[in-house]
Amino acid sequence: MTKAQKKTDNPAFADATAEVLAAIKFDDDGLVPAIAQQANSGEVLMLAWMNREAVEETLKSGYAHYYSRSRKKLWRKGEESGQTQAVRDFRIDCDGDTVLIEVDQKGVACHTGRRNCFFRAPREGAPLSEIHPVTIAPETLYGKGGDGS
Amino acid sequence: MTKAQKKTDNPAFADATAEVLAAIKFDDDGLVPAIAQQANSGEVLMLAWMNREAVEETLKSGYAHYYSRSRKKLWRKGEESGQTQAVRDFRIDCDGDTVLIEVDQKGVACHTGRRNCFFRAPREGAPLSEIHPVTIAPETLYGKGGDGS
Repeated sequence: MTKAQKKTDNPAFADATAEVLAAIKFDDDGLVPAIAQQANSGEVLMLAWMNREAVEETLKSGYAHYYSRSRKKLWRKGEESGQTQAVRDFRIDCDGDTVLIEVDQKGVACHTGRRNCFFRAPREGAPLSEIHPVTIAPETLYGKGGDGS
Repeated sequence: MTKAQKKTDNPAFADATAEVLAAIKFDDDGLVPAIAQQANSGEVLMLAWMNREAVEETLKSGYAHYYSRSRKKLWRKGEESGQTQAVRDFRIDCDGDTVLIEVDQKGVACHTGRRNCFFRAPREGAPLSEIHPVTIAPETLYGKGGDGS
């Protein structure tokens, strides 16, 4: 069993699968937006989408799984890049239509090689500045033919 | 001009409206998910949706505006409850399909009277515990007939 496949340290997650799934209101496509936040800093890393299977696999494994809308399949975060997200908490909002996971991000969350995906913002004299640096070259993460998973 | 209507302290926002709108990929319903994060603590407060008008009004006024999917209209956060969000930064993600706003939340973000909306999480022995307290009674925010705006 690899590190990325080990069972979550928090048995409450796996035990709660049925209740969590019942509390989530999946949209017409069977998806719910999921925000990933770095647990020890509060940094918002990314937003992706989960279907029922992604929720189940996240709770069971303790590692973030999403549904890739572009590739139309389950996506274990870091499956190609190695940039996994160990899940520390799994929260549902008041209306059940958004998930917030607290994670420990290995390396970088963004497929551009930045720590987080929210790197474009208005600044004086530059309507959309890049406010975060690339810390790992995308070619290092994916090779030249990678698709950013 | 009321406090909630004053122009943003950051002129870069209003000046960047055209570029920001061009960088956002609105979905088939003309919406983009927007995460609101408390600027000075990193607390993720809520996720709501913006249409083009909500983006424009947020950048122009410096206060968070959303599109209410249930009421099908522009929604200035706090217009009924007084729980406004002054916007400190407006960020777009790598793919242009999510917005992250850094805000100063007045009072509470959640219509349930909790500081943030993500208050349900699995805990040992309680599959969906309420992990944040109600700090302002909803009746105080909206009166008995309020709809949570």
